[in-house]
Amino acid sequence: MARNKHPEETRSLILDVAFRLFMEKGYEHTSIQDIIQQLGGLSKGAIYHHFKSKEDILVAVTDRMTAESNQMLAYIRDRTDLNGLEKLKAIFKESINRPVQDDIFTVAPDFHKNPKLLFSLLQDTVEEVAPNYILPIIKQGILDGSIQTKYPEELAELIILAGNIWMNPMVFDDTKERSYGKFMIFRQMLCGFGLDIIDDEILERLLELTSVYQENK
Amino acid sequence: MARNKHPEETRSLILDVAFRLFMEKGYEHTSIQDIIQQLGGLSKGAIYHHFKSKEDILVAVTDRMTAESNQMLAYIRDRTDLNGLEKLKAIFKESINRPVQDDIFTVAPDFHKNPKLLFSLLQDTVEEVAPNYILPIIKQGILDGSIQTKYPEELAELIILAGNIWMNPMVFDDTKERSYGKFMIFRQMLCGFGLDIIDDEILERLLELTSVYQENK
Repeated sequence: MARNKHPEETRSLILDVAFRLFMEKGYEHTSIQDIIQQLGGLSKGAIYHHFKSKEDILVAVTDRMTAESNQMLAYIRDRTDLNGLEKLKAIFKESINRPVQDDIFTVAPDFHKNPKLLFSLLQDTVEEVAPNYILPIIKQGILDGSIQTKYPEELAELIILAGNIWMNPMVFDDTKERSYGKFMIFRQMLCGFGLDIIDDEILERLLELTSVYQENK
Repeated sequence: MARNKHPEETRSLILDVAFRLFMEKGYEHTSIQDIIQQLGGLSKGAIYHHFKSKEDILVAVTDRMTAESNQMLAYIRDRTDLNGLEKLKAIFKESINRPVQDDIFTVAPDFHKNPKLLFSLLQDTVEEVAPNYILPIIKQGILDGSIQTKYPEELAELIILAGNIWMNPMVFDDTKERSYGKFMIFRQMLCGFGLDIIDDEILERLLELTSVYQENK
């Protein structure tokens, strides 16, 4: 088959098809067999050559989305018209407002059944997002006087873990009521660090995404 | 073999032997074969009847320790001589001071290689510890006036996730320097919630456990 000559293209095609099916049917209701059928002509063996399991496909789909998200983070980090605090505010706002978030919450994987996905999210948050995007912004904030802390590494990690993982309605299967409470506690935590950076617009969007997730899980 | 008549005893014996080996050799350097040898006469099949993998044994070992820890939490929760804030303080102090903590940090599993273990810790924290131990104490604190919050569920979850998972040097492979910074940020976070409950004694013990972990990993 011609596709075998281009393993990267085959891999990418599998991810495209899988993501569309996850969106349409939900992750838990999509089988490897469904993906194979939509790929027309690709054998089960060919898929397993690229991915060990359905969960591995999900992790790869998520990684691809994360790479897109990181471009947005880099763009804000490198802006020259904002101080550190304003950049942090922009990151929270842009992250949650991106239209692709609706797609992500539609896939609605059950994290109880997919521990690898949670681990992959945690790893990306701690090893990529915190040190490469949040930390440089906090350091800029310390220099320009808009952020005060003696422990920028640890502050970066805690706020992005709380924001990305704990506040993510999919990870802990949050209801709208729980999302509301988490937002309030998260905002109080940020204010305790002198970071008054999330507002009611973000709360509204969080509740909207929680609804998308709850309707699709 | 007589043991087959008592599956619970066999299971418990496997966990005893496995834990001792994990302590002596470290988790990553212990093989299923090592465990079988020490069990004398128990076949590989007999082990796999009880556990699917070495990681499953580790999760079971950890669950058994967690059950012991939960007894201590219940004891503090049900004391009648302390207000809510004092109980919260007692829980952080007792948790970190328990001698078994030295054993746990000696096992030093690599969480990167054992995502199931992290998931199990997270699940225990969110589904057991937060609602059954921390939440009732915070609610008592609201009633007796020692703790102020409108969102006790979410506050309970955030502080125990940060304390149990993020501050755990094993989970993110923390150096002493990182543990120090995390402690400082965690204390600031708690104070932002009006919870001045961790002190330098706890910091010293955290740094001690971080050393135990670093020496044994």
